[in-house]
Amino acid sequence: MEPWAWSLVETLRRLAARDISAVELTSLYLERAQRLNPCLCAYITISDRALADAAEADRRRSQGGFVPPLAGVPIAIKDLFDTPYLDTTYGGIHVRHRPPREARAVRRLRRAGAVILGKTNLHEYAYGTTNDNPHFGACRNPWQKDRLSGGSSGGSAAAVAAGLCAGALGTDTGGSIRIPAALCGCVGFKPSYGRISTHGVFPLAPSLDHVGPLARSVADAAYLFAVLAGWDPNELHRLLLAHPTDLCLPRRKLVAGLPGGSLFAGGQAGVRHAFARALAQLEAAGWSFRPVDIPHASDIPVAQNIILASEARHVHRELLATAPERYGKDVRERLEAAQQFTGADYVWAKEVQAATIRALAAVWAQVDVLILPTVPVAAPARGQTQTELNGETVWVRSALTRWTNPWNLTGLPAVSLPAGWTEEGLPFGLQVVAGPRQDRLVLQAAAYAESVFGRMPVEPVTPDPQAKP
Amino acid sequence: MEPWAWSLVETLRRLAARDISAVELTSLYLERAQRLNPCLCAYITISDRALADAAEADRRRSQGGFVPPLAGVPIAIKDLFDTPYLDTTYGGIHVRHRPPREARAVRRLRRAGAVILGKTNLHEYAYGTTNDNPHFGACRNPWQKDRLSGGSSGGSAAAVAAGLCAGALGTDTGGSIRIPAALCGCVGFKPSYGRISTHGVFPLAPSLDHVGPLARSVADAAYLFAVLAGWDPNELHRLLLAHPTDLCLPRRKLVAGLPGGSLFAGGQAGVRHAFARALAQLEAAGWSFRPVDIPHASDIPVAQNIILASEARHVHRELLATAPERYGKDVRERLEAAQQFTGADYVWAKEVQAATIRALAAVWAQVDVLILPTVPVAAPARGQTQTELNGETVWVRSALTRWTNPWNLTGLPAVSLPAGWTEEGLPFGLQVVAGPRQDRLVLQAAAYAESVFGRMPVEPVTPDPQAKP
Repeated sequence: MEPWAWSLVETLRRLAARDISAVELTSLYLERAQRLNPCLCAYITISDRALADAAEADRRRSQGGFVPPLAGVPIAIKDLFDTPYLDTTYGGIHVRHRPPREARAVRRLRRAGAVILGKTNLHEYAYGTTNDNPHFGACRNPWQKDRLSGGSSGGSAAAVAAGLCAGALGTDTGGSIRIPAALCGCVGFKPSYGRISTHGVFPLAPSLDHVGPLARSVADAAYLFAVLAGWDPNELHRLLLAHPTDLCLPRRKLVAGLPGGSLFAGGQAGVRHAFARALAQLEAAGWSFRPVDIPHASDIPVAQNIILASEARHVHRELLATAPERYGKDVRERLEAAQQFTGADYVWAKEVQAATIRALAAVWAQVDVLILPTVPVAAPARGQTQTELNGETVWVRSALTRWTNPWNLTGLPAVSLPAGWTEEGLPFGLQVVAGPRQDRLVLQAAAYAESVFGRMPVEPVTPDPQAKP
Repeated sequence: MEPWAWSLVETLRRLAARDISAVELTSLYLERAQRLNPCLCAYITISDRALADAAEADRRRSQGGFVPPLAGVPIAIKDLFDTPYLDTTYGGIHVRHRPPREARAVRRLRRAGAVILGKTNLHEYAYGTTNDNPHFGACRNPWQKDRLSGGSSGGSAAAVAAGLCAGALGTDTGGSIRIPAALCGCVGFKPSYGRISTHGVFPLAPSLDHVGPLARSVADAAYLFAVLAGWDPNELHRLLLAHPTDLCLPRRKLVAGLPGGSLFAGGQAGVRHAFARALAQLEAAGWSFRPVDIPHASDIPVAQNIILASEARHVHRELLATAPERYGKDVRERLEAAQQFTGADYVWAKEVQAATIRALAAVWAQVDVLILPTVPVAAPARGQTQTELNGETVWVRSALTRWTNPWNLTGLPAVSLPAGWTEEGLPFGLQVVAGPRQDRLVLQAAAYAESVFGRMPVEPVTPDPQAKP
């Protein structure tokens, strides 16, 4: 297996065994990123100091003594995080700049020795889920390049899935880590609300914004999460040494809830069939299932949208007033439409949020986790704004977030992991959700599921000189 | 001195000494309430079970053993609190009912042995500060009956000031305890946000709503607060036995901040002169003063209004949609105008709130308390909607709340206490504000100030059969 296809955990083992140096590894990734980025449009900026950082990691490793937990591992950062040493755009053209301070999550990775390869493409200001960025190009799906990666952390997902980095950082306000992870075939983890600092991240909607990792395996995502959340180094060491399924296997058979009701019904045929196959595999492996009702389900998407739109509108108040023409069409229209919501609507939405979190306690009394497909539809093509879902024509954006955004409103930890393929030949993403602050449990359950489905290969991607991102 | 003019602390001493029984005392108050209420309009409902409760208090006291801390003390309750045994209206006509559960604060008083005399008049749904209630009459100022009591806890303030109860319960969202206390000449205490339960109180704006006592002295207010906040019985015993100024005198001389800038400038001449006299008295008693800037002062009234209007609109959403004609004109117009605020405005206002609380830390590093007049204008006449302030014509409501509502937005403990008279012959209310959770300090400072100014007499009130409330 090529080094750019190793999992992050494997990469760490090889670096520790001196099978490869950080400089060699980083050179491989940089060469690959430079060659394939024109057709994938996964990066906005590729770093010119990654090799120097890698050399420093090699130096530390050769000195002996304490080796930080990510020493020499090449990581990509969604361009929504502030990096004083790399151009930062937030996916917009107002603000390309070198911010004075580093985002806290990025600092954690760098202090742990990670080599930052570059800044990845995203939906403009993270306010959308297709990742068709009007300024930096449409981020392609590595598996079918006429389709989009999904977003808004699409550049991070495509880079992980195509072997342009060993792991990546993303953000998730309505599904922005899990949706592209599902569409591109990698693991995306949205931890509990507040678990990883959002300091130095350009906000979309502060009461829904989450930071989390994207990676090639659940164990990789857990390891990155452990660094980001400040876990004990011993915990990291255990994660590193153990085989993921040994480590993550829960002590008893899991009971998984299947959310019912109209919000969670249906999905496109390809998705439904892939989900049915995944359930059969999990059942054969000992999981049991129980249908559950999600409280306030009909209010959830409405409340999520009111909170997201109102907070985003507030964040963009000044830019929108002074230079509306500098936004792409879809984000500008979305920000303008946000004016329809009154303060009373926002108060209602926050009450729905609190009531839903409270009422979910009854669900967590019955099941360990919830499982459902991450997205109900196939990866969209570029320019596609509508799709068919359950016999209705709906906006692609609202279809993509339908099954992810309830877990932003409720702040619950949720993983999307690859679980086979749809009939269209696209990765199928399974979503696992756990109760309040059950980050460890949701990772354990996802790791167990991954051991059933097997890990995804890395898509090698043939560069296509015809492609115009 | 007549028993209805005793302070609450004095009342407790007399009850303990068997100088008077709870039944005798309650009869006196009931007789007085029934005789004077037609001209003051302080009560909406006078209880028909107060004498039975008083007899029970006498029985317990005669049995010996534990005597609860308010046994036999006649108390009035603002009609915004749920009482299953007394009609509850919230000052509106939609909802006269006997609610199934008792408000938590009222339950605390009753478990402490208080005798509930009745439910007091308020601005309709507490959404206003004049207390000219369209359904239950205009609540009069005991000192000049052609003027209003102020509100929205005006019935409680008038009842305390005119000797129609020994103490009362109120609520304060923008000044609703302190404003009528200042205008009627009694003590009103808005504790820190969240310190006393609002459970069973009809909400006005949940993130600004506070519950607190109105009383004839600072020690009385402190004693009621101690019961409401669940203090230790020993603490109550110390409050009861000590002379207020002994107990409350801070250990060192106080440094009081005088808020400056345009928000806190001016005030009508009568108020300015009374405030200058009060400052001179306090300075002679050893206080020192320091001008301070209140951060975000120009945003505070705007943010307070957006939060209050948006939350109130949400609370009234259904009633307003189904029966708008059943509201009084001013409250209906206010609720309708609340639609002008967007969700983004609300988010902005909550950010101003958080930023102001944080930035005030610099003020609390310099001073012990802030002092300022409670209201910048004289008590309004019935029907008066505008007044002159600093050379401008302004709405009475916004003039009345200008100097009280910053301490709702910031959730800080604030007391209004009588501090002499204006040239118009009306009580002058001085406001003392302390830092976060400094409820004890603000009561100590207010008690010390009260010892300088002397206590207010109770206005005996001549019933005027001509008066049409």
